[in-house]
Amino acid sequence: MPVEVLEKAKWELVNWHQAGMSVMEMSHRGKEFVAIAAEAEADLRKLLAIPASYKVLFLQGGATAQFAAVPMNLLRGGKVIDVVNTGVWSQKVIAEGRKFAQVNVVASSEDRNFTYVPKQPAWKRSSDAAYLHVCTNETIGGVEFPFTPDTGATPLVADMSSHILSRPIDVSRFGVIYAGAQKNIGPAGLVVVIVREDLLGGAMKETPDVLNYAIQAKNDSMLNTPPTFSLYLAGLTFKWLLERGGLAGIERANIAKAKRLYAYLDSQDFYANPVAKEDRSRMNVPFTLRDPALDAAFLEGAEARGLSQLKGHRSVGGMRASIYNAMPSEGVEALVEYMEEFRRKRA
Amino acid sequence: MPVEVLEKAKWELVNWHQAGMSVMEMSHRGKEFVAIAAEAEADLRKLLAIPASYKVLFLQGGATAQFAAVPMNLLRGGKVIDVVNTGVWSQKVIAEGRKFAQVNVVASSEDRNFTYVPKQPAWKRSSDAAYLHVCTNETIGGVEFPFTPDTGATPLVADMSSHILSRPIDVSRFGVIYAGAQKNIGPAGLVVVIVREDLLGGAMKETPDVLNYAIQAKNDSMLNTPPTFSLYLAGLTFKWLLERGGLAGIERANIAKAKRLYAYLDSQDFYANPVAKEDRSRMNVPFTLRDPALDAAFLEGAEARGLSQLKGHRSVGGMRASIYNAMPSEGVEALVEYMEEFRRKRA
Repeated sequence: MPVEVLEKAKWELVNWHQAGMSVMEMSHRGKEFVAIAAEAEADLRKLLAIPASYKVLFLQGGATAQFAAVPMNLLRGGKVIDVVNTGVWSQKVIAEGRKFAQVNVVASSEDRNFTYVPKQPAWKRSSDAAYLHVCTNETIGGVEFPFTPDTGATPLVADMSSHILSRPIDVSRFGVIYAGAQKNIGPAGLVVVIVREDLLGGAMKETPDVLNYAIQAKNDSMLNTPPTFSLYLAGLTFKWLLERGGLAGIERANIAKAKRLYAYLDSQDFYANPVAKEDRSRMNVPFTLRDPALDAAFLEGAEARGLSQLKGHRSVGGMRASIYNAMPSEGVEALVEYMEEFRRKRA
Repeated sequence: MPVEVLEKAKWELVNWHQAGMSVMEMSHRGKEFVAIAAEAEADLRKLLAIPASYKVLFLQGGATAQFAAVPMNLLRGGKVIDVVNTGVWSQKVIAEGRKFAQVNVVASSEDRNFTYVPKQPAWKRSSDAAYLHVCTNETIGGVEFPFTPDTGATPLVADMSSHILSRPIDVSRFGVIYAGAQKNIGPAGLVVVIVREDLLGGAMKETPDVLNYAIQAKNDSMLNTPPTFSLYLAGLTFKWLLERGGLAGIERANIAKAKRLYAYLDSQDFYANPVAKEDRSRMNVPFTLRDPALDAAFLEGAEARGLSQLKGHRSVGGMRASIYNAMPSEGVEALVEYMEEFRRKRA
């Protein structure tokens, strides 16, 4: 998270705006918190230029809860859903979706170990899918969609957890966008859902009320107590982004950071990134050392420099640099310097 | 929340224990956060003397998500659930339960506007209920169970959201205990579930993984990213309680606070509390003014004294003093003083 946001939260933690209480202690129906929530939504709408025909929901359970909530809300009597399989997170969407529907995998990059995004012309879509799901940035594989799929009348649903707010997007191309907060929005425990109004209603009978989009929309995401402190922090992050030129501004910074790291990776052969160049993620940069026996020494040296959380996901191993919005360019510079120093010593 | 907990969180917010990062920025699978979570669970187990045969889950979605999760997990092929209806929260349990099962209301206090707990001998239980549900403290009505029901072989399930950790309980009498965090545990966005191991498994096929007790238990509540900061704050609160003599210690304080407020309420006839004396909540004390036309003036004067959040729930009106664990006796004293001053001026 941006250090400026954390600092602000620190000084407001015990006594918010002289209200005599912490945000955590506010009633979620009191005027103070209702204003905080409304401002957060307004700022998010501004950042993403969300059309008025979309509802913004602030829910709980992370993206993983949405893997179930999406079919529960969007099947609307349908029996089939289309999913593009680009990695670990897509696979979770498929597994959860199979509880509710027949899942048609329209394309998969498993043949090359999830290192690319299958081009749309080759997708084998079903004629009767209730929606088509993509994970537009695969956190673990470091693969990002370089295009927005065109699905015609079929609603397009996207899990954008690990790259939302990193670049402008055209919300009107999507039926539902959802994103766990813990990458670019705020602390874990909050998930943002942006849903086109005409898709509301018609949820399965067994849908828990907390996951029912229509019910949550009707209640301004306050069917029950929302994660108040997380929403407040998300609001601070939205302001931080607006002050930095919004998504166009942060995109410029993200392109520069990613370019620096990938250029270094491509300039030598001690480290390698396996992802197809056009599909490389600007947020998550996995890389391997030529000699995996050096992994532990690499991580230890990194920790000693304050470069933490570089270990790759347990499912794939290797390294992964996550260079989310909050990572300053100096952080990327320090990483590249360390990598080069380590390479010279050990190559 | 206890001011000591908020102060500690404030100073650790940006840089936790010199780790160079906020708790909010930690990977939930990193050693720092895994230790925080393990310590929180160990401290909660100590506080409630939770038997080893029970799993402790830290989930999301509040108690409202559990209104669905409980039947999804515990029906196990059954068709009927028994519920005691003692007020607004019980009614929500009934409504959500009806999505999944036939709900048998074994007893209701609706006949006297939810101002008492129906005595167990009069309950009309079904012979084949998958479980029996009680809300042991009705936040809005200010009604608290003065006894633990005896349901024999039928699992007893309790929503303890608004009085958990306010007094010792015998966990072994329950099949499932759940509680939203935002009263006595920590910030909103976390819900604690304590479930007897033999009840795990057998969830309905449509149960979202995030709400599946067996799956979450197997993953130490980390199927996906948990609400890390909320769990950390809960852990600080557990330590705060342990330092104050655990639940026996806080119960003494809670009895004294409740006694002071109820004694005052019973000593005059300008204010009134409608709840049967033996069933009065130690946490939530609703009261009305003889002349409701004075409500607004009462609330305004209270706010001016820093006595906030006294307005009763929109569904019942009047006032409600919530005197949770974190409320010091001085807070109750200040409230009684203000009430008496207001009474003298306006009676």
